[in-house]
Amino acid sequence: MAQVAAGLVGLETPCVLIDMDRVEANIARAQAQFDRWGIAFRPHVKTHKLPELARLQLAAGANGLAVQKISEAEVFAAAGFDDLMLCTTLMSPGKIARARALAVGRRFALVADSGAAVAALSGDGAPLRVLVECDTGGGRCGVQSPGEAADLAAMIDAAPGLIFAGLMTYPAAGGTRAVQDFMTEARRQVLARVGHCDIISSGGTPSLDQASGAPVVTEYRAGTYIYNDRSLLERGACRLEDCALMVLATVLSRPTPRRVVLDAGSKILTSDLMGLQGHGFLPAYPKAQITGLSEEHGVVDLGQDAGLPQVGDKVLVIPNHACPVSNLVDRVTLHRAGVVVGGLDVAARGTVI
Amino acid sequence: MAQVAAGLVGLETPCVLIDMDRVEANIARAQAQFDRWGIAFRPHVKTHKLPELARLQLAAGANGLAVQKISEAEVFAAAGFDDLMLCTTLMSPGKIARARALAVGRRFALVADSGAAVAALSGDGAPLRVLVECDTGGGRCGVQSPGEAADLAAMIDAAPGLIFAGLMTYPAAGGTRAVQDFMTEARRQVLARVGHCDIISSGGTPSLDQASGAPVVTEYRAGTYIYNDRSLLERGACRLEDCALMVLATVLSRPTPRRVVLDAGSKILTSDLMGLQGHGFLPAYPKAQITGLSEEHGVVDLGQDAGLPQVGDKVLVIPNHACPVSNLVDRVTLHRAGVVVGGLDVAARGTVI
Repeated sequence: MAQVAAGLVGLETPCVLIDMDRVEANIARAQAQFDRWGIAFRPHVKTHKLPELARLQLAAGANGLAVQKISEAEVFAAAGFDDLMLCTTLMSPGKIARARALAVGRRFALVADSGAAVAALSGDGAPLRVLVECDTGGGRCGVQSPGEAADLAAMIDAAPGLIFAGLMTYPAAGGTRAVQDFMTEARRQVLARVGHCDIISSGGTPSLDQASGAPVVTEYRAGTYIYNDRSLLERGACRLEDCALMVLATVLSRPTPRRVVLDAGSKILTSDLMGLQGHGFLPAYPKAQITGLSEEHGVVDLGQDAGLPQVGDKVLVIPNHACPVSNLVDRVTLHRAGVVVGGLDVAARGTVI
Repeated sequence: MAQVAAGLVGLETPCVLIDMDRVEANIARAQAQFDRWGIAFRPHVKTHKLPELARLQLAAGANGLAVQKISEAEVFAAAGFDDLMLCTTLMSPGKIARARALAVGRRFALVADSGAAVAALSGDGAPLRVLVECDTGGGRCGVQSPGEAADLAAMIDAAPGLIFAGLMTYPAAGGTRAVQDFMTEARRQVLARVGHCDIISSGGTPSLDQASGAPVVTEYRAGTYIYNDRSLLERGACRLEDCALMVLATVLSRPTPRRVVLDAGSKILTSDLMGLQGHGFLPAYPKAQITGLSEEHGVVDLGQDAGLPQVGDKVLVIPNHACPVSNLVDRVTLHRAGVVVGGLDVAARGTVI
């Protein structure tokens, strides 16, 4: 689908297109891998925010869903999903009360990485399942050592209204070995202190293909794999034909032979660089570079390609990072091989709290 | 407001806060400058997307509003604003029909920079006022020379259903002299060819204080000045006490003495770098750097500051770029000196088309 299919060329732009054939293939391929490895798979819905796609992921064999905000959890709970892991801790009494409400009648877990968080989460009402978040090299949240993990597991185990549910990490890309080493030792110490350690959860699409390299992991979370994006493509973590999300844009201007300006800027492609040069990949113009974004315009340097596109032409862009793109639109357009087959409201968009 | 005021500390986070005292001061200061210079001022509403703030801008003396999308124009037209300039061209028949509808009963203009765009815009119905967009060094859209500007002005003047309304540019930051030179010559050639050239419109908050350096300009557009942001602060284009938009965030984790993790990531602060290092400024922790953003987390390196903040504390962040932040939330919270005075739905949020 390098050139814009006839069935898509009439759409108003900018427009987020989802190739459902590719979505289904991506879901099936990842799930088959985890089934083969005997690792439970928990898709992260922050990427698509669409209950309709989450249903496909569960139908393929996923274990439950991962969410990143309490509001996302609420949207998916309201849509009938009954196994949710919130991959962040909560500190506010209001959000913790909402978490307790979600813990009634469904399987719900969240994470903590400090005594302060455990103290905040502890309380009356439906018990909350809590995993200890571990920093295995990702450099974001998480306790810094297996010993700290065991200390916090014991604290959760002893805290009123909390159930210790296991260990969780968001590893560095390529950090599979570090996950195996950290989690093996953390599990050993946790078992010695608490006597149980049900879930060991790792995640991330960039390292998905290497997930079996950390057999201590019982459950894996990934979001972007359902759409893929330029960051995964350039790292060799997916193929061009796996890229299911593209932005359709119109050429508004060609002020010089080499420069083309699209009606897609940072308010649709986002400014996420993910370590790359440029702001997206144009499959029909592989030498072109999106050199700059303003809010509603994308400036493309065609390089030596002095042929198409002309003013008024439509082009497809694979964004650097798919996840925040979904978050910017109220609706996405679904197609199969260039034929529009529907549209979906992005149910959990804009739920920032 | 470096420390979080008692009246704000209880808000759920992440939360976009607008300091109305600062908004009013920013509006008054900019308008007074343009009044003194005798240049009409046309605030750009892409920054706030709020009819309520646009009313304050008009009440202060603004000439009309600038918008960046046809959908933004429609939202502000529906809210009663009767002088709108759309600072982009349109190529789709659907959007052009919507523009024609907006041209009935109000003053409405848009821009073009190619014969293809003029041909697309020309047609039956209410005449459309069209300015020629000129590239005076910004490197985005726009004709490349005064001669091309005059050619296109003549084409617009002759096209059925179009009225040539003047010249427009979005200059490079610091490009005031280039605007003066380009526009003086373009105006001369346009007058020779077409006989009139009513509006010469320039814009941009970074060069706002230098706007009088291009006296050929009759009208100036700026958006960010109403809020300001870290990119303007670091360039010396505003003071800390002019920053009216901040994001309130909660410390979710402090995994190491130097590292703090906030519940504000790229889905609220955006990844816009604007040429800077890091992803925002923490007024209460001026040595701290937001070194990395994931979607829902911001990683802060406190540097040598090993004191506050602790897990659970609230912090304020001035984002690198204010405009796309408004676009990410459905509602903003208004305050005066730390006391909440209301909230506003972001009327034109999510209108990507």
